[in-house]
Amino acid sequence: MPRSNKSARPKPDETVVPEIYAHRIVRTLVLRIDDAPGRLGAVAAAIGKGGGLIGEVTRDWLDISHVYRRITVYVNDEKHLAEVIEAIKAVGGVDVLDVVDEVLSIHEGGKIEVSSRLRLNSMEDLQKVYTPGVAGVCRKIVSDPSLARKYTWISNTVAIVTNGTAILGLGDIGPVAGLPVMEGKSLILKELAGVNCVPILVDAKDAVTLVSTVERMYMGFGAIMLEDIAAPTCFEAEDELDRRIPIPVFHDDQHGTAIVVLAGLINALRAAGKSGERTSVVINGAGAAGTAIAGMLHHFGFRDIVVLDSRGAIYAGRPGNNAAKEKLASFTNPSRLRGALDQVAPGRDVFVGVSKPGVLSRKTVSKMGKRAIVFALANPEPEITITDALEAGAAVAMDGRSMNNALAFPGIMRGALDSGAPKITAQMKLAAAHAIAESAVPPALLPNLLAPAVHKHVAQAVAGAALV
Amino acid sequence: MPRSNKSARPKPDETVVPEIYAHRIVRTLVLRIDDAPGRLGAVAAAIGKGGGLIGEVTRDWLDISHVYRRITVYVNDEKHLAEVIEAIKAVGGVDVLDVVDEVLSIHEGGKIEVSSRLRLNSMEDLQKVYTPGVAGVCRKIVSDPSLARKYTWISNTVAIVTNGTAILGLGDIGPVAGLPVMEGKSLILKELAGVNCVPILVDAKDAVTLVSTVERMYMGFGAIMLEDIAAPTCFEAEDELDRRIPIPVFHDDQHGTAIVVLAGLINALRAAGKSGERTSVVINGAGAAGTAIAGMLHHFGFRDIVVLDSRGAIYAGRPGNNAAKEKLASFTNPSRLRGALDQVAPGRDVFVGVSKPGVLSRKTVSKMGKRAIVFALANPEPEITITDALEAGAAVAMDGRSMNNALAFPGIMRGALDSGAPKITAQMKLAAAHAIAESAVPPALLPNLLAPAVHKHVAQAVAGAALV
Repeated sequence: MPRSNKSARPKPDETVVPEIYAHRIVRTLVLRIDDAPGRLGAVAAAIGKGGGLIGEVTRDWLDISHVYRRITVYVNDEKHLAEVIEAIKAVGGVDVLDVVDEVLSIHEGGKIEVSSRLRLNSMEDLQKVYTPGVAGVCRKIVSDPSLARKYTWISNTVAIVTNGTAILGLGDIGPVAGLPVMEGKSLILKELAGVNCVPILVDAKDAVTLVSTVERMYMGFGAIMLEDIAAPTCFEAEDELDRRIPIPVFHDDQHGTAIVVLAGLINALRAAGKSGERTSVVINGAGAAGTAIAGMLHHFGFRDIVVLDSRGAIYAGRPGNNAAKEKLASFTNPSRLRGALDQVAPGRDVFVGVSKPGVLSRKTVSKMGKRAIVFALANPEPEITITDALEAGAAVAMDGRSMNNALAFPGIMRGALDSGAPKITAQMKLAAAHAIAESAVPPALLPNLLAPAVHKHVAQAVAGAALV
Repeated sequence: MPRSNKSARPKPDETVVPEIYAHRIVRTLVLRIDDAPGRLGAVAAAIGKGGGLIGEVTRDWLDISHVYRRITVYVNDEKHLAEVIEAIKAVGGVDVLDVVDEVLSIHEGGKIEVSSRLRLNSMEDLQKVYTPGVAGVCRKIVSDPSLARKYTWISNTVAIVTNGTAILGLGDIGPVAGLPVMEGKSLILKELAGVNCVPILVDAKDAVTLVSTVERMYMGFGAIMLEDIAAPTCFEAEDELDRRIPIPVFHDDQHGTAIVVLAGLINALRAAGKSGERTSVVINGAGAAGTAIAGMLHHFGFRDIVVLDSRGAIYAGRPGNNAAKEKLASFTNPSRLRGALDQVAPGRDVFVGVSKPGVLSRKTVSKMGKRAIVFALANPEPEITITDALEAGAAVAMDGRSMNNALAFPGIMRGALDSGAPKITAQMKLAAAHAIAESAVPPALLPNLLAPAVHKHVAQAVAGAALV
C-alpha cells in the first residue's frame, strides 16, 4: 500500500472479496529473478501449481542480469507458504530475498498522525499561531463560546472511545491491544469523510466509570464514537452519555451495523419482490448488534420481528430476562414464540444472524418463506455460507464481508458534525440507511464503500434529518 | 502564512521581534490599485505617514488596469487602523477591498488535524488496515504488550492536558477557550520535533479529579504534557501522576520555563564573567514557573537563591506558608532574608522575574551586584524593560519574548518518547538545559528555536540522560 500517495488507482466496482481469498494469509515475496523471457511465467506457474494465489506483481529494480520483483501471494497458512517458497526455489534462477508480512508492516508506527495545518517558516508565523497572537483567539472564544467551532478543530473532530472489552471477534483483550482497530477506524473516517478521529483508550470496564471519564473530557471533541465495548455496558454507557453530554454519541457496533443491515434489507426486499410491512424477520443474536438491528427494523416499520439469544426466542416475561432483553421483548415477538432457531425460523422471510459461525443449517433455510433473505453476519465465519444458503433456496444471501460498517459511520459522523446536532436521532439513522440503499447500483444490494459520493450522500441525508 | 508548504523561507538568525512591533495589532489590507508607476510608493508613504508599519506586500492578481495587493500593516489599535485606511483612500486610485485579521483567520478550522499515514485505494487496502487484517496486529499485541509501541502510534504520541485554569496570561478561562493554545503547542511539537500531540480538555479544577481522569485514559499515549494548569493544582497533579502512571509527565509551564531560564543563565554567566557557584539569585514570583526555576537552579548547583511571592521573601517557617512554599523554603534563602524585592535584590547577581509587569525599578537594578543579569519574563509586559535594565547597569537583560519554552518542550518530548523512559528525571531536564545552552551562537544567549538542529540536539541529550 503506498504511503501518502493521493493519486488513486481505479476503484473496484465490487466490494466483495471472492470466497477464494477468504481466510488465507497474505505475504509479499521479494524475489531476484534471472532476467530472461519466461522466468516470471515459470515462477507464477510454480506458485499456482503449489495452490497459492497471486496478487500484485511489481518490478522494483533491475541489475545487469536480474530483475527484482515483489509478488503478493495468498496461501492457506505458514506451512503452505513454506511449500510455495520451496516450489519457487525449485524453478531455478530465482532467489527468495525476503518474505514480508505486509499487513503487519503497514501498521508499524501506527496508521494515523496529528499533523499541522500550517507551516512554521518564521518567528512571525510562530507568533501568529502561538503567543502572543493566539491570545486574541482565546479571548474571542471567551466572549462567544460558540466560536470554538470556528477557531478550533472541535467541529471536525471525533473521539473514538473504547474500553477494549469486545475488540472485533477477539473479545476482552484490553484497549491497548485494540488500538490498531481504533486507528483503522480513524484512518477510514479521515479518508472517506475528512473527519479527524482521536482514539481514546479508557481503563474502565463498568459503565459508570466509562461515562464519568468521557464526561470529563468530551469538551475537546465534536462527537463521541463508542467502539468495541461489550454489552450491556455499551447500552448503559451510550444512554447515559446521550443524557449527560451535549454532543452526538454513536456506538458503531450497534447502530452502524443496524443501519447497514437495514440499507441492505431495503434493497434485498425489492430484489426478492417482498413488501416491508408484511415481512417477518428472525434475528439470531441479542448482543449489541442484534439489539440495535431489532430496534432499527422496528423503527423502519417491520412489525413481525423475533430475536433469539443463546436460550432461544426472547419474549416478554421470559424468566431470566435482564432489562435490555425485556426492553427488546417489548416491541418484538408479538406472538410470544418460543424455541430455538430451527423452530422459529421456518416460514419467515428474513434471517439476520449476528451470532456464531455455522448455526444456521441448510435444512432450516429450506423451511423459510419463499424467496427468503439470509444475512449471515457472524465473524469471522458466517452462520451459513452464501453458497449453502442460496442452494437451500434463499433468494438473496450476504455475509459480513459485504456488509461493512464503514458504509455508514463516516457519513454519519460527517453529517452529525456539519449539522451541529446535539444527538444522533433515530431519524438521522434512518436517513443514513435510506441514503446508503439509494447509493447502491443494482444488482448490488449495497454501494462500493470506497466511492466518496456514498459518504457525501449519507452526510447530507444525516445533516438534513438533523435539521428537521 | 502558507498552508502545507514545506519549502522553507530562509530562517531568521534573530528570534527577537524588535520592540517597535510589540503590542501592535496586525491586519492584512486587500487593495486594488491603479496599475501605474509610483502608486505603491504613494500607498506605502501614506501608511508610514499615518504611523503604520508595513510587513509583507504581495501582488496577487492583475487586471487590465489594476493590480491587486495584500499589504500587512502593524498599527496601534482599531482606531489607528481606521486612520491608516482613510490615509490610503486619500491617495486616490486605490480601493480597500478587505481588511483581514490574519491572525484570526489562520486559526479557522483549527491548526491541527488527524491524518492517515496510508491511503485507501482498494478493498485490499481496507482489509489490511481494518478487518480482517488488523486482527493479526491486535493478536500480536495481546501476545506481547510491548509491541504496542511498534504497531500503534503510542510511542510517537503525547496528550496535552489542560483544565483551562491558567491559560497564558488570561487566567481561568476554561479549557475550550484555551484550546487554541493547546493546538498551537501541538503544531509546534509536530513541526519542530515530529511528535503527535492530542489536546485533551479536562473538566476538573481539583487535582484529584484531574489525576483520576488522566489515569483512566493515559494508556493511548506515550507521554503526558500538563499545560496551563494553575498552581498549586499543577504541582499536586504532576506529582501524583508521576507516581501513578508509567509514562513521562511534563508540566511545561514549570519545567519548560525553568529549563530555558537555566540555559539562558548558563550563557549569561559566561557573558557576564561570573561563576555559577558563587552567584546569588533572586526569583520574583513563586507560582508554577518560579517554583520550578528555583528547583532547577538549585539542582544545577546554585546555593544562594531567594524566592519572593506577593508577601516578600519566602523563608522556612514563615507564617502562612503552604506546603509548596515550605518545600521551596527548605532549599532556598539559607540566610532567612526577609522583606520586599527592593530590600532583597541589592547586591545580588541575577534577577529572574516571573511575576508582574513593571515591578522591578531601575533603582533596584542599579543596586544589584556588578554586571548583573536581569531576566524579566512577566507576560505580556516585563518586570522592567530591557532598555531600562541595561541603562540601570545590568550586563545582560532579556525578557519573555526571547525566552520561549518552545526551545525546550519539543526536544524533551521527542527524547523522552524515543528513550521509552517511564519518567522525565531531573537529569533529563538538566541535559536539556545544557543542550540548549550549547546550541546558542554567541553573542546570542539562546539558539534560534526554528532551527531543527536545536531540537535534535536536545532530544539526543534527553534520551541519553534517560538511559544513564
